[in-house]
This record gives sequence, structure tokens and C-alpha cells, in this order.
Amino acid sequence: METDKIKFIPGGTVTSPEGFFAGATCAGIKKAKESLDLGVLFSEAPCVTAGLFTASKLKAAAVTLSQERLKEGKAVALVVNSGCANAYTGKQGLADAETMASLAAAGIGVSAKDVLVASTGVTGQLLPMDKIEQGISQLILAHDGGHELARAIMTTDTVPKEAALDVKTGDSGFIIGGIAKGSGMIHPDLATMFCFLTTDAAVELGFLRTALQKSAAMSLNMISVDGDTSPSDTVLFMANGRAKNEPITAGSRLANIFQDALDRICIYFAKALARDGEGATRLIEATVNGAANLAEARLAARAIIVSSLVKTAVHGGDPNWGRIIAAVARSGAEVSESKIDLTIGKIAVLKGGKPLDYREEDIARVFQQEEVPISVHLNLGTESATAWGCDLSEEYVTINSQYMT
Amino acid sequence: METDKIKFIPGGTVTSPEGFFAGATCAGIKKAKESLDLGVLFSEAPCVTAGLFTASKLKAAAVTLSQERLKEGKAVALVVNSGCANAYTGKQGLADAETMASLAAAGIGVSAKDVLVASTGVTGQLLPMDKIEQGISQLILAHDGGHELARAIMTTDTVPKEAALDVKTGDSGFIIGGIAKGSGMIHPDLATMFCFLTTDAAVELGFLRTALQKSAAMSLNMISVDGDTSPSDTVLFMANGRAKNEPITAGSRLANIFQDALDRICIYFAKALARDGEGATRLIEATVNGAANLAEARLAARAIIVSSLVKTAVHGGDPNWGRIIAAVARSGAEVSESKIDLTIGKIAVLKGGKPLDYREEDIARVFQQEEVPISVHLNLGTESATAWGCDLSEEYVTINSQYMT
Repeated sequence: METDKIKFIPGGTVTSPEGFFAGATCAGIKKAKESLDLGVLFSEAPCVTAGLFTASKLKAAAVTLSQERLKEGKAVALVVNSGCANAYTGKQGLADAETMASLAAAGIGVSAKDVLVASTGVTGQLLPMDKIEQGISQLILAHDGGHELARAIMTTDTVPKEAALDVKTGDSGFIIGGIAKGSGMIHPDLATMFCFLTTDAAVELGFLRTALQKSAAMSLNMISVDGDTSPSDTVLFMANGRAKNEPITAGSRLANIFQDALDRICIYFAKALARDGEGATRLIEATVNGAANLAEARLAARAIIVSSLVKTAVHGGDPNWGRIIAAVARSGAEVSESKIDLTIGKIAVLKGGKPLDYREEDIARVFQQEEVPISVHLNLGTESATAWGCDLSEEYVTINSQYMT
Repeated sequence: METDKIKFIPGGTVTSPEGFFAGATCAGIKKAKESLDLGVLFSEAPCVTAGLFTASKLKAAAVTLSQERLKEGKAVALVVNSGCANAYTGKQGLADAETMASLAAAGIGVSAKDVLVASTGVTGQLLPMDKIEQGISQLILAHDGGHELARAIMTTDTVPKEAALDVKTGDSGFIIGGIAKGSGMIHPDLATMFCFLTTDAAVELGFLRTALQKSAAMSLNMISVDGDTSPSDTVLFMANGRAKNEPITAGSRLANIFQDALDRICIYFAKALARDGEGATRLIEATVNGAANLAEARLAARAIIVSSLVKTAVHGGDPNWGRIIAAVARSGAEVSESKIDLTIGKIAVLKGGKPLDYREEDIARVFQQEEVPISVHLNLGTESATAWGCDLSEEYVTINSQYMT
């Protein structure tokens, strides 16, 4: 990886790449007063655009609409709201999503078919269209508007998630920026809640789609907060070509560094989403090595971070490591008891299936760290995968027992 | 179903069928002093015996041993302990399980190969064999010993689970009895923790195995507390023939009533396990009708009771019904948004995908009942399934944050 050529931009966000603008407003959709809950992301040049959407069989209206509009891989803007997911709302919901896009298109002065939509929040309720219309009319787009947009898409997130990478490519370079939001209903399944990425690089559509899928598969698809999947999950990647490079294609000179940079920003967001999971107090990073194949490595790593019992043990600093092995053993991955190794932090706990001479209080101490590294070696093959999750706290239950009321 | 001929026996337990005896003692395996934690179930006549075991790739030593011994479908006794699962303990663990069976066999005066073993509790630790040996020597078996045995297998259960059914068959009859324990690591996957069933009916082995699988598939396999699977899950069904009936076989006169009775007692235990899930304050009963096929009906029903978001909404009396639809939509079952109906208690919430005119406080009231009935109609076919689960409370987290410490 050409890491020295890829650098995080301090204060970077989704509008850091050239030619992107954003704005947000308090439309009054969220119950909390004076919360940003509506915004627009806009590129002054048309974007080659790739998207990944929820795997749920019932998709929110905005997902249905955006998926349809992305068939040709083009977009210039995104209008997004929090506070209401416009899901399970039937034909009226779809009509409302279309109106929302049209209102935004008219405000910016572009064609409605080039505007994508995303909505997150409570399901089973119609969008308050009067507030949406009023809100859109108030929007002011700015090149540093990404920071406001990052806050406008938050639901139970405690911090906005935004980042941008500066990528040097010898003669010139490009930027990849993004924002994301969690923080419940997070589960590996094609895409995970909202992650909106932008770049000023020129990228060919087929390559952009493949690159986004590859990066998401090892990052956004490898996190779980609670095993649930929302109807609204949307990952978008808009490339407007303002960096004026030769369009990047599979195998072209910049393909590798572009993929590396995309991997890095996607992993950044994956970890940020997991760390800020509802009620989370720490990040769990589970790595599985030595799997027979990549699919099984991923299954096993995910099983660890999905397990309520692992999550509660970490939360309580309870050195109950058998739960990690139980999760791997039920994951579907091939496992041989006499070959399995387990390391928690730097403490070797199990070697070839035999418990080693460790001190329980040392494991408890690792479980109390802000980042808890768990590493399992299956010693059956050469494939590896990492998954990210968080502890399960009483606070998660409290948040989700009172989401509407 | 010939329900009038099948009656619950007040105070019934695993030793209610003729010829079964049990006993339990405080061996000191559990940390809590004076807790029953070791016991034996014994039949004075050899039993045709069927078993279902954990689907985990790494099985506890007791499971490996019992599975091997059940190849020919015969047993006369079971020795069981709580407080230590003897899982992930390698060759020594297997040797200890064998010794435990041999000690019990010697105590009762039977052949060791006819004794099954089950262990539950903390994983990754060896059995305290001195305490096991001492404990077995103290056991006294009695015909009403099932009550003690039901308590000896408890871990985080708050109440013992025991039941027996009296089945009238015209000329004579038979009894089916049982005990079970949860109450975490409960997830549909072949078998669910411990459920030990007995009957004095004479039953042919092939039929006993099929009947147990059928009943478990619609009861013990349809519950979930936390999505985790233990290495120790064991369901046993011992039939000693003391009722002196013609051995029941597929298609024979008593086959249907036997299956009905077995279904009933298995559903009884499934509900009892779900209701007493760790930290649970109420039982969720999710029924899915109108599925395209049985497998999808089961997938969808399970997805509802597995969802942390549904479980927390029920816990908080938060009428967030969209989470139920989200769970069904990600379950893998075929779903058509314009056809789906949702009923919570007796309140019709969604009809053909359209929200109806209901009052949120009425849904909240159903969520606060001790039993919360949720019914989804997919209107795609004719298959149905029911699954049972429980709410997710802060108490679940507290219990599992401090399991060892």
C-alpha cells in the first residue's frame, strides 16, 4: 500500500473534494428542537456515481427511488433527511420521495432525475412534506457545508462522522471525502446505514462500482452493532472528475492507489460507526486468521462481534473467553478444536485448543480498554478477515426501549 | 389433536412416567453455596433413547460422549452437572466426562456405556473431578427426584422447568415427562440447552427419533433469547416401555396421539425457556401466516423474536412496530410490501402494507402484557410458524457482564 501518498486531511469532510457543496437546516422533522435534520449534497459537475443499498426485502421509498435513478450511474445531488425513514409507507411514500427530490432539484436548478434521496429515522410514518418543502427552501449550499450535513444525518449517533483523504499521484492528485451515520440497526449486509463518499477524481463507472463493492466488503460490511438491518441503508460514491485526471479504470495507473485510499476511508468509517454504536463504550476488533477461505474468515470474525455474550462480557470486563470460541464454533466456518489459538490483546489464552497459563485479571484489563483486539487463529488455511463491533451496555437497551416515546 | 385425551399432570416432572428415578446434590461445582449442581436420572428398565445435540462445530465433551453412546439408541441413565460446561477442554475434558459416567454407573450398578452425560456452566475450565466423585457418592435416587434434578440443572434460570402429560389411549395409556433449563445462549439451532424427556410408553427407536425431531423443529428450535448457541445443547428422550403397550411405530395406532403429546410438552418447555430468558420480563409469541413455504415461515417468525430492536421496543412499551416489519424483511423469507398484514395483540396495525388507524397507546399496552402476541400475515401462501422469545432488558446486560466475576 502506498500509504505515504495517502494522508488524512485535518477537518476533512464530504465536501473536501473540489466542486462539492452542501448545506443543512433544522426543518423540524426530528422531535428535538433545533436539530439539523435536512440537507443537500451537490456537485457543480455531473458525477459518475455508484451505490450500495440495504439487502432488506422491503426497502424504504428513498432506496427504491435512488436505486432506480442510479441504473445509469449518474447523479449531481443528494437530498437527505433524518427523523423519518419514510419506510413501509407504500405508494404515498414513494410519491413523497419523488417530490422531495423535485423540490431539491428546483432549488438547486438541476434536473430532478439527477437527484438522489435518502431518509432515516422512525419507520411506518409518512414524511412531513410541508416541513420538507419549507426546509429545502431555506438551504444554503457552501463548500464547507459537509460539516453541517454530517450532523443533519445523525440519529442516535453521539458524534458526526466525517473524513477526507488527500491522495498524491506524482504529477497531481485527488481527494476522497465522506460522511457516515449509524448507530443502531447496524449489521453486515451489503451496506450499513448511510455512508456518502465523494471524490474529485475522474473514474469510469464500472471501476467505481467494483471498487466500492470491494472496499465495503472488507469494511462497512464487517461491522455490527445489533444484528438488525434497516430498510434505508445507503452507501453512495460520487466522482465528479474535477481533478482532471485520465478516468481511472481497472488496471489503469491510478487504480491501485485509488482502491487503497477508498479501503482506508471505508475502514475509517466502519470503525467510527462501530465505536459509536448505540450505548457503546468501547470498540471490539476481531481478527480471524488461518481460515480455509475468505468467506469463512469473514463469517467467523462477524460471529464474534455479533455475539451478545461476547459483547456483554467485554462490557463488564468479565474474562469469559469461552464465549469467543462458542461464537466462532457456531459461525459456520470450519473449525478444528485441536488447532485453534486465541489471543486477547497481547495475551495468549488458547494454543492448539489448550488453555494456557494466563491471568484472568489481565484479560479483564484488555476488555476494559477503549479498543479491544481479539484474534483467533484457526490454523486451517491462509485467509484472514477483521470485523468491528462494540460492547453491549444497559444504555443500548435504554436507548431502544424509548426510541419513539 | 385429541386434546381431551392429553392432560397436564399437576406437579408432573421427568420422573412422573413409571420406572424413572432421580436424585441431586450440592457437589460444590457452582460458586453459590448450597446450590444443587449434580444429579442423576435413571430408568429401572433399559430405554430406547433419542437425542438432539448442539449444532456448534466445537461440542462440549459431554456432547461428544453422549452422541457416540446414542448411536445404537439405548441408555439407562444420565448424569448431569451445572456450574461447569467442560467445553473447550480437549482430551482431558473427554476423559473426565467418561470418568463421570463411570462413577455414576458404578453408583447405580449399571454398565458405563449405558450412561449419558450432560454438563452446563462456564466454558474453558476442567471439571472439578474430586467434587464430582464426592457428589455422586452422596446421591439418593427417588421416584419424585425429578423436582430436585430440575433445580440441579439450572444456571441463570430463575425457576425450574418441569412438566408431565398423562395420555389416555382407550384401553390404557402412558405418561411423558420432562425437565428443561435455559436461559441464555438460547437460539434456534437443532437443540436448545437442556431438555430431558422421559416416557413409560414403549416406542420403536426410528419413530422416537423422528417424533423428537418433528416436535423440536416446531418448539425448541423456534425460540431465541440472545442469538447465541452453546457447545452443550442437549435434548434427550428416554422411553422405557413400562406402560407395556405395543411398541409405537410410524403409522401405528398410537403414533398420532404420541406425536401430539410430545408436541405439547415440547411447546410447553419452549415457552417456559423463552419466558425465563435472561433478564426477561415478558414472553413474545410471533406467528407468521401465509408464507410461501414452511422454511420461510420459520425464518420470518424467528427473525422477529431474534431482533434486538423488537425486543427492546417490547421491553420499553415503545409502539415502534416498523421494527417487526424490518425483521421480517431481512429474514430471507419472500415478502411483498403490498400484501403484508401486521396484528399486535388484537390490534390491526398494517393491512396490505398500509398503516391502519390505530392508537399508539393501545400497541404500547400490548407490549406491556406478560405475553405479547405478534402476528404477521404475508398473504403469499399457506404455511405458518410460531416462534417464542423475550424482551431485552438492562438486566440481561447486567447478568452477562458479570457471569464469571
